[in-house]
Amino acid sequence: MSTATHIAESNPGQTAVLHPSATLATFAANLRFEDIPAAVARRFEDLLLDTMASILAGSKARPVLNMADFAKAMGPAQGLSEDFVRRTHTSPYFAAMVNAASAHFVEQDDVHNGAVFHAAAVVIPPALAVAQAIGASGKDFMTACVAGYEVGIRIGEFLGRPHYKTFHTTGTAGTIAAAAAVGRLLSLTPEQMLNAFGSAGTVTGGLWEFLRDAADSKQLHTGHAASTGLQAAYLAASGFTGAKRILEGKQGLGVAMTTNADPAKLVDGLGSRWALAETSFKFHASCRHTHPAADALQKAMLDNNLSVDDIESVVAHVHQGAIDVLGPVTDPKTVHQSKFSMGTVLGLIAVKNSADLISFDSVLGDGKITEFRERVTMVLDPEIDQAYPARWIGKVTVTTRDGKTVTTVVEEPKGDPGNTLSRPEIEDKAMRLGTYQNAATAQEVKSIIDQVWQIETAAKVGNLLLN
Amino acid sequence: MSTATHIAESNPGQTAVLHPSATLATFAANLRFEDIPAAVARRFEDLLLDTMASILAGSKARPVLNMADFAKAMGPAQGLSEDFVRRTHTSPYFAAMVNAASAHFVEQDDVHNGAVFHAAAVVIPPALAVAQAIGASGKDFMTACVAGYEVGIRIGEFLGRPHYKTFHTTGTAGTIAAAAAVGRLLSLTPEQMLNAFGSAGTVTGGLWEFLRDAADSKQLHTGHAASTGLQAAYLAASGFTGAKRILEGKQGLGVAMTTNADPAKLVDGLGSRWALAETSFKFHASCRHTHPAADALQKAMLDNNLSVDDIESVVAHVHQGAIDVLGPVTDPKTVHQSKFSMGTVLGLIAVKNSADLISFDSVLGDGKITEFRERVTMVLDPEIDQAYPARWIGKVTVTTRDGKTVTTVVEEPKGDPGNTLSRPEIEDKAMRLGTYQNAATAQEVKSIIDQVWQIETAAKVGNLLLN
Repeated sequence: MSTATHIAESNPGQTAVLHPSATLATFAANLRFEDIPAAVARRFEDLLLDTMASILAGSKARPVLNMADFAKAMGPAQGLSEDFVRRTHTSPYFAAMVNAASAHFVEQDDVHNGAVFHAAAVVIPPALAVAQAIGASGKDFMTACVAGYEVGIRIGEFLGRPHYKTFHTTGTAGTIAAAAAVGRLLSLTPEQMLNAFGSAGTVTGGLWEFLRDAADSKQLHTGHAASTGLQAAYLAASGFTGAKRILEGKQGLGVAMTTNADPAKLVDGLGSRWALAETSFKFHASCRHTHPAADALQKAMLDNNLSVDDIESVVAHVHQGAIDVLGPVTDPKTVHQSKFSMGTVLGLIAVKNSADLISFDSVLGDGKITEFRERVTMVLDPEIDQAYPARWIGKVTVTTRDGKTVTTVVEEPKGDPGNTLSRPEIEDKAMRLGTYQNAATAQEVKSIIDQVWQIETAAKVGNLLLN
Repeated sequence: MSTATHIAESNPGQTAVLHPSATLATFAANLRFEDIPAAVARRFEDLLLDTMASILAGSKARPVLNMADFAKAMGPAQGLSEDFVRRTHTSPYFAAMVNAASAHFVEQDDVHNGAVFHAAAVVIPPALAVAQAIGASGKDFMTACVAGYEVGIRIGEFLGRPHYKTFHTTGTAGTIAAAAAVGRLLSLTPEQMLNAFGSAGTVTGGLWEFLRDAADSKQLHTGHAASTGLQAAYLAASGFTGAKRILEGKQGLGVAMTTNADPAKLVDGLGSRWALAETSFKFHASCRHTHPAADALQKAMLDNNLSVDDIESVVAHVHQGAIDVLGPVTDPKTVHQSKFSMGTVLGLIAVKNSADLISFDSVLGDGKITEFRERVTMVLDPEIDQAYPARWIGKVTVTTRDGKTVTTVVEEPKGDPGNTLSRPEIEDKAMRLGTYQNAATAQEVKSIIDQVWQIETAAKVGNLLLN
């Protein structure tokens, strides 16, 4: 970043300084493909394929179709950006909105543990839509997405755990992450990028209240973040200004929506630490907070040769965030809500040895799983809570029908950077998700896989699905 | 409301109850034109004209044009809804976004003192855009807008002063107000209306941080509230669900974005107290927080026969909210920012005996006003603060060059319900605003005035400007 253009600010009596969000905006504006390590670029391709598959997997869901109907009613019928839900083209704004709404639906998109932030859903759809619209190269598209990941994850870390108690960080930090990615594609200057952050941050949102009612808001959160972040970047390109300190200012997000926000986290290791590479793939089709315990139960049953009928009860030892998010879901009424039910997820593991997308489809009518659910409790584990969010440790205590008690720990859940998916595993997951409910044909998914593995060499990012 | 459909909720062991936001949503969904007192309907017409004029007055402003450019790039080139900025038709979503962005720009649109909420900017543009698109009657349009005012103002009161310290209530409460108005036009059921509230509330936003930089965010806040609220209502009509307690829930706005939120305020006097009629017109073209002191200074100078050259210094005795919003603006760099500078506004009064729209245009280059600005200070007045926000009392202490000190109080600023504008005064203001910077011709404004006074009898709400 030595050649970077900087936003110099004059403070009387001091040399020019760059406040943290200005440094972050400068990084996003100036990031070049050459700056990105090859391993990070490869990991991005993995995440891109995973995201495309997630978008397709969500594309038949009723809330996603509601969003698509809105885009049809309000948006243009022409454009260069693919709407994968309606299988049509439209403007980047609506493509971003609809694809982002779809990307998060099946809860299979990536997550950064430390930030508790799903970057893919809010970064890739707007970046892809704009790249298609302006004919950006594969490298520029990749660079923009990496910028979005690096920005969004650091903002998630900045907002921290107190924020996540009430806010869906993917919606809040996501708006600015989307602005960063689109802003990079639009070649915003550092000053313009900071304006885009200001605009994106001032209308960001996403509250957890909807979980209590199993409402559809998650799809709105990601759709809103993607489209509003995109808007912020376009506005900045045309001269629209925003707050320079929307993150760390006295009336900014760090004061308004969290406590103890640490601005140093906004710039942590910029250019040397690649947060994108710390992102986890989701193996189970449920809320990430259920995964550590699911892996631990799977291991406990395998290690101790237990079947579901051997189990009297399970105690999941969890971090506080799991209790905050999953705690209200005591009696899931929809498949989507059941993905936030620890009892249901552990029931799937116990009964089917799988909590994948297809397993969930029949979960509500399965008496054995419902019955198992009642035998699961969550308790706060101080050690696990202490390690969180840097590490998501799985720990269950299983009491068997014959009175034995076993406690099993999994240090790193499947999909985490130290226990990641291989490319064949990612392709396999993509094929299952992409063809889910006949969203796409196997041939179409295969074509997407091929294109994604070659995205770096694309002179222009074109259609990935529609031809 | 005796024939109203209600949202019944079963609580085990209790009779069905309606929680406050469900009661409010039910009110908005079931409001009929016949329920609205004639005086309230007439006051709404006044507010509608005032809003149309405000939209036109803002329509040449660069931030508003940036928003319009975005609508052009991303929205459809056809539609039935008027975009008064681009003077074209588009979909209701973009018409709402652009017109709402314009409505608040010149700071001349209405305000509800108790809620510190500018209903017009966020309610009328989306309601008008949708009414035009679906061919609603004048009465249905009016009913929808009244619903929007009643909902938005009560939410502003619910969120209260702690919210306003950090958040621009017009943006936050405005999103739900817009949803209420559009939801009423779309004939949402009470259940759907509550879903619309949930969707609107979960992605609402608007932070004051931008004021420190004189950034353009206010236009984004109103545009975002109008378009996002509209989206929430359309989504609800198509079956998309939202949190049932986005306002008073444990992870709702009342917890996330304020302290001491009182849910009783959401339903205060519903159907008998008409908050719309409590709305104030803005007489000066500046932030409403400057108006009480401006009126008091005007009175002090008149009563004591003072000219600007007689004045050594002015102390404005204000409520805390004025200090929060105006305090950071110590050296205004733009005309817009100068509207948030107490010193500049009092300087205009002292030098020109007017702080109207045209007076502001030359304010930055006027050395006499800049010089006067430095002689103005704000101090917190506990009595005025105690009365706020129900009453906005103006009080200044003027020290003259010859050593005298006079203190003048204005109990109710010009434009408040007890000191309101007459229809000729409203028409006069509309003509000045509507023709400002040649936004519209005098004939066009006259035509709008005529149509607004007859809006109740319109079989269909059609074009107000474009023919």
